[in-house]
Amino acid sequence: MPSAIILIADGTEEMEFTITYDTLVRAGVACQSAYVRNAAEDSTAPRPYAHGSRGIRIMYDAVFEAPQFLPPASGYDALVIPGGAKGAETMSSSAAVQELVREFLAQGKIVGMICAGSLTALTSKLPRQPLTSHPSVKAQLEKIEQNSPLHFDYSEDPVVISSKLVTRHSNLNPSRHSRGPVSLFIAGTAFPFALTLVEMLCGAEKRAEVRAPMVFPAATPF
Amino acid sequence: MPSAIILIADGTEEMEFTITYDTLVRAGVACQSAYVRNAAEDSTAPRPYAHGSRGIRIMYDAVFEAPQFLPPASGYDALVIPGGAKGAETMSSSAAVQELVREFLAQGKIVGMICAGSLTALTSKLPRQPLTSHPSVKAQLEKIEQNSPLHFDYSEDPVVISSKLVTRHSNLNPSRHSRGPVSLFIAGTAFPFALTLVEMLCGAEKRAEVRAPMVFPAATPF
Repeated sequence: MPSAIILIADGTEEMEFTITYDTLVRAGVACQSAYVRNAAEDSTAPRPYAHGSRGIRIMYDAVFEAPQFLPPASGYDALVIPGGAKGAETMSSSAAVQELVREFLAQGKIVGMICAGSLTALTSKLPRQPLTSHPSVKAQLEKIEQNSPLHFDYSEDPVVISSKLVTRHSNLNPSRHSRGPVSLFIAGTAFPFALTLVEMLCGAEKRAEVRAPMVFPAATPF
Repeated sequence: MPSAIILIADGTEEMEFTITYDTLVRAGVACQSAYVRNAAEDSTAPRPYAHGSRGIRIMYDAVFEAPQFLPPASGYDALVIPGGAKGAETMSSSAAVQELVREFLAQGKIVGMICAGSLTALTSKLPRQPLTSHPSVKAQLEKIEQNSPLHFDYSEDPVVISSKLVTRHSNLNPSRHSRGPVSLFIAGTAFPFALTLVEMLCGAEKRAEVRAPMVFPAATPF
């Protein structure tokens, strides 16, 4: 059974978190949410939930500081970094998160970023490659200032799979392969983001199987 | 500021709950989630969250037994009943929920049902009218057995606004009007469901304003 870590923090966009987690569970992926503390937060008085960007409080499965989440990367197959401005700021400024992103990619594992979550590609100092994000952080991801070198090759596509980092494992299950990073546009595209992750982890057949009972309106382009 | 009660129970589909709550908050609607206890649950040992259908635990804002939620309906403008088979069963079999649905509709307020949540239209003994739902409960909503009279005029449309119960208030704000019930297809259509509620509560302009930064892929049909 493939497995995924889905990060969560105060200010995480709760639709992006929930759509990704729920869709992966529907595909049979073992999901664990890992709470990333804000640097200013009192770790001696922990609370068991994250405050979403629109006020929904979600209980997390574990705290990111737990050994199974910290680098060196554990046996998880995918790492998901959702958006929400404040949550993405907390995640992208965490040295441990940055290190985990680099380790996942070095091992050819999947890293999915959505919305402002793509900021972590910048703070993790990933090499220049295709990428997308919420428009609100586009300028930061493209370049810091006029005439400076491009950080990333910014795309307006709803889902970007960075081909520069695509790797394919010749393992026993031909439908499973790892690529990284996946980075994505925003809440409205959380469904195609999540379905793309399902396809990468479990194959195209599983994607179709998970999508069907969701009964998207006709002509939905994903 | 318009306001909404969004029901939640163990087994509620967490995407449907979250997308609706989050989208309404983006529109400036004051949302309160109200936890409906399963009849078998020990009310002397309450826990502060609901278990979603795919394992996400969401803290609720209040328990449905609180006076502000029970009939006679309070000052809330809309009532939302999400799906998820087990959660919808709990809600639809609650006499207090059924009574609240009837009161909201009698007062010309909005009742939105999505996915299996539409079962509550049946248990609340609403009159025959257009309705939709997740395909898994279609047979129950249409008629109990061959040759029995139709319960509802079942539609395959992603969003059905029951015109039979449409009422329009000639209040000061021409963009606000109440209709009921709205019932809807499933998780994949949670976005158009939520955006329809925004339009009914806050007007078409607000719907467009909330939808834009969600950056749905081009050609998305809602």
